[in-house]
Amino acid sequence: MPVSNFTQDELDEIYAFAVDLGRKAGDMLMERVEQRISGGEQKFEEKDSSVDIVTQTDEDVEVFIRSAIQSKYPEHKFLGEETYAKGQSRDYLITEQPTWCIDPLDGTVNYTHIFPMFCVSIGFIVQHRPIIGVIYAPFQDQLFSACPGRGAWLNEKRQLPLIRNPIPPMPANAPSQCIFSCEWGKDRRDIPDGNMHRKIESFMNMAAELGSRDGKGGMVHGMRSLGSATLDLAYTAMGSFDIWWEGGCWEWDVAAGIAILLEAGGLVTTANPPENPDTAPIQDLSLGSRLYLAVRPAGPSETETGRESQERTVREVWRRVRHLSYNRPGA
Amino acid sequence: MPVSNFTQDELDEIYAFAVDLGRKAGDMLMERVEQRISGGEQKFEEKDSSVDIVTQTDEDVEVFIRSAIQSKYPEHKFLGEETYAKGQSRDYLITEQPTWCIDPLDGTVNYTHIFPMFCVSIGFIVQHRPIIGVIYAPFQDQLFSACPGRGAWLNEKRQLPLIRNPIPPMPANAPSQCIFSCEWGKDRRDIPDGNMHRKIESFMNMAAELGSRDGKGGMVHGMRSLGSATLDLAYTAMGSFDIWWEGGCWEWDVAAGIAILLEAGGLVTTANPPENPDTAPIQDLSLGSRLYLAVRPAGPSETETGRESQERTVREVWRRVRHLSYNRPGA
Repeated sequence: MPVSNFTQDELDEIYAFAVDLGRKAGDMLMERVEQRISGGEQKFEEKDSSVDIVTQTDEDVEVFIRSAIQSKYPEHKFLGEETYAKGQSRDYLITEQPTWCIDPLDGTVNYTHIFPMFCVSIGFIVQHRPIIGVIYAPFQDQLFSACPGRGAWLNEKRQLPLIRNPIPPMPANAPSQCIFSCEWGKDRRDIPDGNMHRKIESFMNMAAELGSRDGKGGMVHGMRSLGSATLDLAYTAMGSFDIWWEGGCWEWDVAAGIAILLEAGGLVTTANPPENPDTAPIQDLSLGSRLYLAVRPAGPSETETGRESQERTVREVWRRVRHLSYNRPGA
Repeated sequence: MPVSNFTQDELDEIYAFAVDLGRKAGDMLMERVEQRISGGEQKFEEKDSSVDIVTQTDEDVEVFIRSAIQSKYPEHKFLGEETYAKGQSRDYLITEQPTWCIDPLDGTVNYTHIFPMFCVSIGFIVQHRPIIGVIYAPFQDQLFSACPGRGAWLNEKRQLPLIRNPIPPMPANAPSQCIFSCEWGKDRRDIPDGNMHRKIESFMNMAAELGSRDGKGGMVHGMRSLGSATLDLAYTAMGSFDIWWEGGCWEWDVAAGIAILLEAGGLVTTANPPENPDTAPIQDLSLGSRLYLAVRPAGPSETETGRESQERTVREVWRRVRHLSYNRPGA
């Protein structure tokens, strides 16, 4: 286990520190919202496209989090979304070393519009595996957190997944009866067979009535798009979303959410279907891949283990989705 | 004005009654969630498709609301989502009379999965115009409400829209920079040029980069799907969503949300573009139409009134969306 270098006491201390940090950072996000509500609009600086607005808040909160971590754990590496953006490098910089990977503000578009689905995301990674995660969405005061040996929690009082007496298996006819979480993302280029078209084709397969679209129609129970990869993962850990499929986000968007989902009992693998989706091994998460497929925690049924029902669901999704192409710069 | 039959005191009394009723009904929804979390899963009765599950809760909450209204205001008409469903009639039953139009549980799919975007929706309609609305989403304790002469509110303490010093105009290049709220809905039939395909084509036009798709690319800031028409309208009233476009929902899904959006200063018209979207008059809301296009509250810019910027946005949406076909049974 990658956590073997740390004692439970050490993990607990890091966890408590991260929870405290998440709350304080979220409060900073909310303070700025209150300023905007009471005092009028502030100006936003546009980044590379109209879908990617970075605010001064984003940078300030990252500085706050980085300072706190570097002061408390100078021996740990630190990577933040703003650090990456400023350095003009989007290489995968995570190593075997214990690393904090944070997004000071996930759901930036939601934040600028004051749609409550924005949050701070703090992940702690050991040997490429996110093990501690804290996500705080301050507008609705929802704190998601997890630590090895301690479980995953909403507001430190409801254990995740919410329904756990018992944890339901994945539906026998998944993806039917599943809530499918997906995002349109920022790549809106209208290129034939480009990422946007491949995404939409995949969405339509998941949505369409059973048996339609050459047998690919999945008739999912609902299609949801929140505009925050971090919160998509949090709601998957909660059991609210059954499946999340996404390409194009970065490790700082998913590190904390993956830690929480894995601790809750979820599964994460690649969004891109292998050549034979029915039999190919279900690869473990590749954190730098920018391609993620997540399935909620699942318990056993009379005929399957929870893991078997999750893997069956992964294969059913793979049968319905297209390959996406999100290289890293220079990769 | 349709409210002229009521004094402000009468409206205030109805409003206070509706807020209290909304909170109590929402608490009932949440009690059942707590039972499911602590005591395991309950069984759900399936309605006409896997996307439409009705729970016992739904019926119980409607009975509670109906009894309270009929006891307090026996002279008012009452129409509830479950009343319609049970009667096998989905005719438009609203008349000139003061009518309560309620949905005991909007976002049923979210509710069954315990995704927090579910709510109770209580609308009070006079002469076909929703004038008082209460929406309560108990999981995140968000109460949206409005009454003529009293404004629109979140949790009775934040006036809507949230940013109002001043209220921003619609963006000069709308729908760019707008959050576009839309739902996949329940009609997933894979019919060429059917509603699902027309919706997706419209979604793609709104999402795609500017100038693409024969000039229809709208490059909206974000695409959001929550699975609750009621909350889509509430977040539009809040100013979080700029545009909501939907076909297929019913008057009980939208009555309360429209009352709140209109009181906040929003605009509601038809989803279906007229023959000449550039010059056709912007028709007033038709409550029974099952076709809705809503634009958030907007203030003046240096060159336009708020209403002008809303109407400009309506026309830009109409240029990009397809006609939808949702008849009423028998119509």
